[in-house]
Amino acid sequence: MDFERVIIGIDPGTNVMGYGILGVNKKHPSVIAMGVLKLSRFESHYLRLHRIYERVAGLVNQYLPDEMAIEAPFYGKNVQSMLKLGRAQGVAMAAALNHDIPIAEYAPLKIKQSITGNGRAAKEQVAEMLRRILNIPQDKMPEFLDATDALAAALCHFYESSKPVVEKGCRSWKEFIAKNPDKIK
Amino acid sequence: MDFERVIIGIDPGTNVMGYGILGVNKKHPSVIAMGVLKLSRFESHYLRLHRIYERVAGLVNQYLPDEMAIEAPFYGKNVQSMLKLGRAQGVAMAAALNHDIPIAEYAPLKIKQSITGNGRAAKEQVAEMLRRILNIPQDKMPEFLDATDALAAALCHFYESSKPVVEKGCRSWKEFIAKNPDKIK
Repeated sequence: MDFERVIIGIDPGTNVMGYGILGVNKKHPSVIAMGVLKLSRFESHYLRLHRIYERVAGLVNQYLPDEMAIEAPFYGKNVQSMLKLGRAQGVAMAAALNHDIPIAEYAPLKIKQSITGNGRAAKEQVAEMLRRILNIPQDKMPEFLDATDALAAALCHFYESSKPVVEKGCRSWKEFIAKNPDKIK
Repeated sequence: MDFERVIIGIDPGTNVMGYGILGVNKKHPSVIAMGVLKLSRFESHYLRLHRIYERVAGLVNQYLPDEMAIEAPFYGKNVQSMLKLGRAQGVAMAAALNHDIPIAEYAPLKIKQSITGNGRAAKEQVAEMLRRILNIPQDKMPEFLDATDALAAALCHFYESSKPVVEKGCRSWKEFIAKNPDKIK
């Protein structure tokens, strides 16, 4: 099936990487694929980074996404874990940048807020909301919540990018309408 | 000129990335190329990451290095700067991993120690030592010390990888010799 727009969502981690591919047709999002890449069996940090790069590059070649959405925490336990996370994000981003795919990143709180209306929602709640919104059959729901987390990043990006663009400097709709009379129908 | 072994040294940063290519013939290292990639003119963080990936991928394609050595600080000012540094390292590493090039990383202190004998040496001292060791003409010395820092990482890796391999579990030469009688000449 052809889609007008394809968004790849990535939840990069050094133990598990989740991914979700969202297709959009007539403003209607649906799931194309989702899954996880388990990395804990690889001892070498470089091998893990290599596997992340390979998998994301493979998904990009297979599904030809127009955009990438990444779940990106802004705070971490310590500088060491943030450096490792940054590397995992970096190799995943490289696979997208290599094909000139624009990247958007969202904090976990923002994604949860966007999907469930509650920034503190549990991963299970996010998965359940995705199941309902995207009409995913119960038996197609993934075992690992990293996959739904990644799909949530893609759906959050779809919602965010579908919002009307408010130009910089416009603090209210009134101001926006005054500055953009041509955008009023 | 053909080299038995080529090592690419990278000093990744989000404002300036330094690189140095070292060629080795008959255990004798020499400079093939070095330079910097200035990133501060690009406002977008993603554009910077893209440029890093493109440049490192270009250097890998041009010089076909056998190994990559990266200068990698283990501590940073804060988690935010470490995440950004991790991403810069990640995209540089992706370009090497994409060609199955093994990566070695060295802390700045280790590199300075290896080149000058002093882990607290200034960047200028490292550059001056490199100039002498590698017989670099004064007028070929780079303007930016990020280039010499990257070359220093490559030379440090050459020194480290030229050391006799002490197997894990051997705490002394005596133990190593006892365990590896075939390696004694």
